[in-house]
Amino acid sequence: MAQPAIITVAITGSQPTKAQNPAVPLAPPEQVESTHQAFEAGAALVHIHVRDDEGRSSSDADRFARVQEGIRKHCPGMIIQFSTGGRGRDPAERGSALKHRPDMASLATGSVNFATIVYENPPPLIDDLARSMIEHEVKPEIEIFDLAMLYNARELVDRGLLKAPVHVQFVMGIPGALPAREKVLDFLIGELETFLPGATWTAAATGRHQLEANRWALAKGGHLRT
Amino acid sequence: MAQPAIITVAITGSQPTKAQNPAVPLAPPEQVESTHQAFEAGAALVHIHVRDDEGRSSSDADRFARVQEGIRKHCPGMIIQFSTGGRGRDPAERGSALKHRPDMASLATGSVNFATIVYENPPPLIDDLARSMIEHEVKPEIEIFDLAMLYNARELVDRGLLKAPVHVQFVMGIPGALPAREKVLDFLIGELETFLPGATWTAAATGRHQLEANRWALAKGGHLRT
Ligand SMILES: [Zn+2]
Ligand SMILES: [Zn+2]
Ligand SMILES: [Zn+2]
Ligand SMILES: [Zn+2]
Repeated sequence: MAQPAIITVAITGSQPTKAQNPAVPLAPPEQVESTHQAFEAGAALVHIHVRDDEGRSSSDADRFARVQEGIRKHCPGMIIQFSTGGRGRDPAERGSALKHRPDMASLATGSVNFATIVYENPPPLIDDLARSMIEHEVKPEIEIFDLAMLYNARELVDRGLLKAPVHVQFVMGIPGALPAREKVLDFLIGELETFLPGATWTAAATGRHQLEANRWALAKGGHLRT
Repeated sequence: MAQPAIITVAITGSQPTKAQNPAVPLAPPEQVESTHQAFEAGAALVHIHVRDDEGRSSSDADRFARVQEGIRKHCPGMIIQFSTGGRGRDPAERGSALKHRPDMASLATGSVNFATIVYENPPPLIDDLARSMIEHEVKPEIEIFDLAMLYNARELVDRGLLKAPVHVQFVMGIPGALPAREKVLDFLIGELETFLPGATWTAAATGRHQLEANRWALAKGGHLRT
């Protein structure tokens, strides 16, 4: 494929704490500045999680709005993507920031184990988030942590809750979910072409597999994520 | 592979009710008789769920023991497998019947969506069930509802919680989990050979896909399940 790769930056995430890594940007101004640095280094898309004052994963719509506003000012043209996932968030609140109409938002289309817990995305919640994204004209990024989520995304298209062509991210390397394995990625890409023709995709992997996943994505026609 | 196919019968299941189908055997004597009929028709292994007096999915160890005792009497040599899964069971009770030392028990090695709910198998519960099966010398049947569960089973072998070679069942056709699709089964079999060499397997599919899954299993060297 001749399409240019889009370099994405994921700031903060839902898990790391200041105690583990003092450089993790948790407050909105820090998040904006960290995004700005990535933007100047070439990142075109930012994936945003926010935290509360105690550093816990949060769904606070105002915080999302403050980060969005700062990034719009400092990083003109950058694509802003809100996370609707991540561990430790109240399911009923996970879509509350969509009303601020980010360009994109993440949407996990199934449930899977993550390390010691169950990352729960019950079907009615997935439907609600998808509906809210349509209502607020937010482009979903389908997060695929396990194979069934790909077929579930197709189901959502068939039911009118997702607009084709979709954009997906394959996430690899989380214990309990899919491993960072090229053969798995190849299978996912083949099934994507069959079930969601025209879809664009990116591949992300945790920790030490991150660069490998970027290389695979570049070689196979995907977008990039740092 | 030249190994003989083992024909399995799953009685009752965790979902159907008498209201939906009056022929579903719910009480232990009915379950024993239904199993006996399948045994005489050639089934060599029985997968057992039990119900409480209201017909709800149950983990009652005494009920499991009564069904086990009846099947041992009526169906000499038949392999008895207790379910540790199924919807609507208290997680803390799911392994309580293992003390009765069935020949086998099911063990789902991950979480996934099932229709409108999350079928939750948190990693600590999986570990506990696997440990209890080792303690009571029960052979697990690994239930694979989504791809990551296969790699999770390998992890359990590496951590000494499962003994290789394992036996797995690929379950297809439940909405939210893997579809009944030959290409998916082929990929699962290939990954099984790579990550769990020597494993035996069977394939089950829901409803109208059941016969198709049986045909695939016969053709590809798996066991059968009705
Ligand atoms: Zn700046
Ligand atoms: Zn995220
Ligand atoms: Zn009998
Ligand atoms: Zn069962």
